[in-house]
Parts: sequence; structure tokens; C-alpha cells
Amino acid sequence: MSSSKAVVLCSGGIDSTTVMAIAYHQGYDLYSLSFRYGQRHAIELEAAAQVSARYHARQHLVLDLPLAHIGGSALTTSLSIPKGRAYSAIGTDIPPTYVPARNTIFLSFALAWAEVIGAQDIFIGANAVDYSGYPDCREEYLAAFEHMANHALKATVEGSLRIHIRAPLLNLSKAQIIATGISYGVDYALTHSCYDPLPDGVPCGRCDSCILRAKGFQEAGIPDPALVKRSGV
Amino acid sequence: MSSSKAVVLCSGGIDSTTVMAIAYHQGYDLYSLSFRYGQRHAIELEAAAQVSARYHARQHLVLDLPLAHIGGSALTTSLSIPKGRAYSAIGTDIPPTYVPARNTIFLSFALAWAEVIGAQDIFIGANAVDYSGYPDCREEYLAAFEHMANHALKATVEGSLRIHIRAPLLNLSKAQIIATGISYGVDYALTHSCYDPLPDGVPCGRCDSCILRAKGFQEAGIPDPALVKRSGV
Repeated sequence: MSSSKAVVLCSGGIDSTTVMAIAYHQGYDLYSLSFRYGQRHAIELEAAAQVSARYHARQHLVLDLPLAHIGGSALTTSLSIPKGRAYSAIGTDIPPTYVPARNTIFLSFALAWAEVIGAQDIFIGANAVDYSGYPDCREEYLAAFEHMANHALKATVEGSLRIHIRAPLLNLSKAQIIATGISYGVDYALTHSCYDPLPDGVPCGRCDSCILRAKGFQEAGIPDPALVKRSGV
Repeated sequence: MSSSKAVVLCSGGIDSTTVMAIAYHQGYDLYSLSFRYGQRHAIELEAAAQVSARYHARQHLVLDLPLAHIGGSALTTSLSIPKGRAYSAIGTDIPPTYVPARNTIFLSFALAWAEVIGAQDIFIGANAVDYSGYPDCREEYLAAFEHMANHALKATVEGSLRIHIRAPLLNLSKAQIIATGISYGVDYALTHSCYDPLPDGVPCGRCDSCILRAKGFQEAGIPDPALVKRSGV
């Protein structure tokens, strides 16, 4: 078991929660990093806080980022979020929920924090299968970021730190991600996925993220515990 | 003359102002980008606004970044800023004014904005000579960032955009930068360099940035117009 430090990008969704569980079981001291970036709902930050506490993060840092001032995304502006798309349509294009350079910005802050606390490893729930529409969730992008990161810092240039971008879910389907998490005992009732929840935090059930989540649980052969919890069953 | 768009990182200092002049004279439509990131003084943002106006920036975007929450730098925390160092000592180490991953974070936001407005070029006043202590001001770092950037965006992956990181000052001394700017008619009285100015905005004259500025003007053989302006001569 390692006792190294790791920065984990934590959105409170299925992927980052599974990554948090993996890093926790690998023995890392976890430093959880979330962002308030103008997304439409605060509920995902509540989920991120619960997940961070569950995995005994040494610190959970929530940073405010002005992505809405840059625009270009349905998640941070009043552009319309696609609803009711067929699963087969998801991933065939880059949808308007794409946020320009989001993972580059998120990883850049993770990189800064990694240097300050002395963490070699940055975990991200990037996934190239069910979200293949997003360019910054692909292996070649993550490899290029890692290469850049090792030229960017005082600590990497001086040789005291070598940054590794860890994306253990990169080539898994949503069902495989869920099965992996279940094997680690993840409580997915804590997680939140919807891009555009109702005012009371209930998922819309019709955005791409809700559709991928539902299909993942269906294929994994288990009910979504967040739905079970809400229905009071 | 090009009429393409360019994002220019603008701190209001000598280097970024010179870069702004270069990009302006190359015919770009300029989109100026500055950051309020917990630095000790607001005066550099006033300088950035004046410089952006002087070069007819189509837009001057000032973004708030939570770098102080990450820490690790004398510029964003209460760590002491070195004063009165000999010029020969500057650049032999990485000083406490280093901000972890600063250029990576700044360039990441520039990248997002570049995609939204359709700019191929991002200008940065990085300089490897007089600031050789900063790892993210070196050619290999900038090349690695550019490579990563071209894997990061919807527009670069789809082939509608190719990002170029332009650092025209990279291998110039401060005196050469000033001479270049003078040849373009830059008014350096607009610029601000000091890391730790007095409450009325007057430069301390003793931080590394003040020392490099003074040496640059001395070697360029001209008086610093900001000093001339202040002294009322």
C-alpha cells in the first residue's frame, strides 16, 4: 500500500466517485478538488462533499472558476441542453454541453495544488467510451497534458516531483465503471449526474448524462441506488 | 497584414505590453486577457486596462482566479518577497515569487477563450533570459503546452482551429525587449512591474521585478518613462 498523496478531481458523479474509491483503496492520501464554475446546479457540489468525506479526503478544496465569462457551453450559459436523445446519438458528435478547455483548466489547478502539497498523482474520471464526444477525455490528450505538466513546475524541473495523470476509467463502459465501483463498495446513492436537475435537485432523466447513467446501471444489472433512495423503496 | 484574432495575455508589465504592440502591428484583432489572482496590487490591472485600450483590444477580459487558495507563492500569500537582491543573483534559482502552474492556468483560460472566439494565436510575454528562474517561461514548456492544446479542444480535434502559442520575447534580454517596444512606439509610462508597490502604487524599487526593469532601461540607454512621469520631469 502506498501512502503517497494524490489530487483527485471530484465532481460528485459516478466516474469521479469511482476514481476516488480506486485511489482510496490504493492507499493514497486523498486531496479532493471540485469547482464551482457556473454549472446550473449546486447539488453536484453537495455530492462531491459527501463523497470526499466518505473517502476521508485530507482536504476538499472547492474553487470558483469564471468559466461563464468565457462562455461557449450549455452548462455555463443559457444555451439549451439536449434532452431525450437516443443513446445511439450520444458520442457521435460533440454536444453543446462541451465546455471549452474544461479538463485543461481543471487539471491545471490540480497541477498547481499537486506541486504545493507534493503529490505525484492526479486522478481524473475521464472516460473515452460513453463520453467519446469530449476531446479532453481521450488518451492522447491526457498523455500530452502529462508531458506538458512535467515541463511546467519548479518541482518537476528540479526533479523532486514527477507528475502522473491517472485515468483508470479511460477505456471502461459506464456499466464496467459501475461494476468496478460496486466491487469497491461504492455507494452510488451519494452521486449526482444530471446536467439540468429540477429545482429540488431531482434529475431530469432526459439529458445525456441521465441517459448514460440509466443505461450504465441497466447494463450492470443493478438498480440505480439514487433512484431507489428517492423513491423511498 | 493579417486580420485574424489573437488572445494576448496582458499583465500590464513591460513584456506583455511589448507583445501587445507586436501583435497589434502584425494586424491581429486583439482580445486581451488579464487575471486578478490574489497578487498584492491592483495597480497592474489598471495598467493592463490602459494598455488594452491603447492597442484597441476588441475586448479586455479580467478573470478572478482563486490562486491564493492554493498558495505556494509569495505573490499570493504573506510569504516575504525578496528585496535588494543583486542582479547576478536573479535567475540563479526559482524565487518565492514563483506561482505554481501560473502560466499553465493562464494559458488554459486563454485556450478556452481562443476556442470560443475562434482565435488561432495566443500571445504571451514569456521570457527565458531575464526570468530564467521560472520553469513555465521556457521554450520546451511552451512547445509542450501548444502540443497539448491541439489535442484539447473540439475545434482543434475537428480541424477548424490550430493553436499557436506565440512568445516573441522568449530569447530577448530585457534591454532588447525595451528596444523592440520603443521601435513600435510603446509608451512604457503606461506599464507597471513592481511585485510589491507602496500603497500609492509607487514601485518599491527593490524587488526582482523592479531591479530587472531598471537594468533593462539602463542597458537600453533610455530613462524609464514611468519614473520620469512620476518625478514630474
